[in-house]
Amino acid sequence: MNLILLFPSDFIASDTVRLTGRRLGHALEILKPKKDDLLTVGLEGGMIGSGRVVAIDARSLTMSVAFNEPPPPRIPVVLCVALMRPIVFRRVLLTAASLGVEEVIFFHTVRVEKSFWQSTALKEDGIREQLVLGLEQAKDTVLPKVSFQKRFKPFVEDVLPGLLKTRAGIVADPSGQAMAGNCCEPAVLIIGPEGGFVPYEIEKFREAGCKVIGLGPRILKVETAVVALLIRMWYP
Amino acid sequence: MNLILLFPSDFIASDTVRLTGRRLGHALEILKPKKDDLLTVGLEGGMIGSGRVVAIDARSLTMSVAFNEPPPPRIPVVLCVALMRPIVFRRVLLTAASLGVEEVIFFHTVRVEKSFWQSTALKEDGIREQLVLGLEQAKDTVLPKVSFQKRFKPFVEDVLPGLLKTRAGIVADPSGQAMAGNCCEPAVLIIGPEGGFVPYEIEKFREAGCKVIGLGPRILKVETAVVALLIRMWYP
Repeated sequence: MNLILLFPSDFIASDTVRLTGRRLGHALEILKPKKDDLLTVGLEGGMIGSGRVVAIDARSLTMSVAFNEPPPPRIPVVLCVALMRPIVFRRVLLTAASLGVEEVIFFHTVRVEKSFWQSTALKEDGIREQLVLGLEQAKDTVLPKVSFQKRFKPFVEDVLPGLLKTRAGIVADPSGQAMAGNCCEPAVLIIGPEGGFVPYEIEKFREAGCKVIGLGPRILKVETAVVALLIRMWYP
Repeated sequence: MNLILLFPSDFIASDTVRLTGRRLGHALEILKPKKDDLLTVGLEGGMIGSGRVVAIDARSLTMSVAFNEPPPPRIPVVLCVALMRPIVFRRVLLTAASLGVEEVIFFHTVRVEKSFWQSTALKEDGIREQLVLGLEQAKDTVLPKVSFQKRFKPFVEDVLPGLLKTRAGIVADPSGQAMAGNCCEPAVLIIGPEGGFVPYEIEKFREAGCKVIGLGPRILKVETAVVALLIRMWYP
C-alpha cells in the first residue's frame, strides 16, 4: 500500500478521515506510523496528497488530510481480455488498475471455459477489491471501468465498433507480426484466451477494422502478455 | 504447454521418446492428440522440432521426434531480484524462463524478510519445475541458471563486479529517472524488494558502477516490474 485510497465515507470532518478494517490493519502491521507522521493518501477518482496522523490505536487511524497533486497519467487503452480462470482474473484486474488503463472488458470466445463465467470472483465487491489494491500499489486514485461481454458476436459486432470510432483496434495473436516501435495513441487492445483465438474470431476482429500484432516467437501467459503489450506500446 | 520439453531420460531409441506423468496427463487432458498427430517438442538446452504420435493411452505417450529449429533468441540479461515471498518467487521464475533471460540471481537486502530464505520453494526441484513450465509456455528449451546470494555486501562487492565486466548494470528504483528509449545491450538488471532499496543499498550499487533508472510515478509489484523492465528495454 504505497497510497491509502480514501472514500467519501471515511471523512468525519471536511479535512479529517478515520480508518478501520483492512487499511488500519495494514497501517499497524506494515507502515507503523506515529503521531504526526505523514502518509500518502489519495481521494477516489481525485487528487493525491498526504495525511498527518492525528491518532492511531488498535481501533482506528485518524488523519488530517490535504490534497495537492493530480494522480499519474492514464494509459489511453480499453483493455479487452478473454475471460480467464478466477486466480488469473484477479491478477489481471489488479495489474490493469496498477498500470492505469481506462477500462477493462472481459469477453467470451470459443476457447474460454464456460465455467469461468460462474466464478464468484466476477462479483462487484471482488472486482472492486482488486482494483483498489492495484491503485494503492501504483499510487493512483482512478478506478478503471470494468464490464463483461458474455457473447462473442454481439461484442465484436455491436460493442467494438463504438469503441473503434475514436480508437485504434489492436489484436494480439501469435499469428501477427511482432510490433515495430511504440504507439501512444488511444486504442482498444484485445488479448485472447490461453489457447488463442480461433481463425473465425481473428477474421471478425479484422472485419471490425483491427490490426493483428504479435510479440515474437514466445507465447506468454495472459497476465504476462497484458503487461508486456501495455508497457511496450503505451508506457510513457 | 505450447511445447513438450524433452530430457535425455525420455528417449527409448535415438528418435523415439516415451512420456508418462505430468506431460502425459497434459496431453490426455488438453492436447488430446490422435495417432500420427504432430506435437511441438524441444530438447532441453537444444533444438525445437516435432513429435509424431506413435501411440497414446492412459499409461504412456510414445512419439517419433525430429528437431529442425533453434530455440527463440534469449534476452541478454542477468536478472537480479531481491528475494520475495514464495508464491511470487515461483511466478518470477516461470516468467523469467518464459521471457528467456540468461540467468536469475535472488539476493538479500535489508527489506527482505529473513523467513523467505527458509521457504521450501527455494529447493532445486521446485525451481526446476517452474522453469520447465515457463519454457513449455514460451516454446523455449534453455533453462536459465538460478542462484542465490544470501548476504548483500558479498553480492554487491564480490559477485556483481564480475558480472559488470561485460555487462551494463541497471538498478530499477522509484528514485531513478524514467527510462528513455530502448537498449538491447547485455546487462545486469537489479530489482529491489516490495518496500524498495534503502539509500545505503542504492549507494553501493552506484559505487559498483550501476545506473539507477525508474519506471515513472507508478510503483509496480515486483513480478509486474520484472516483465515491464525486461520488455521495455530488451524485447526484440
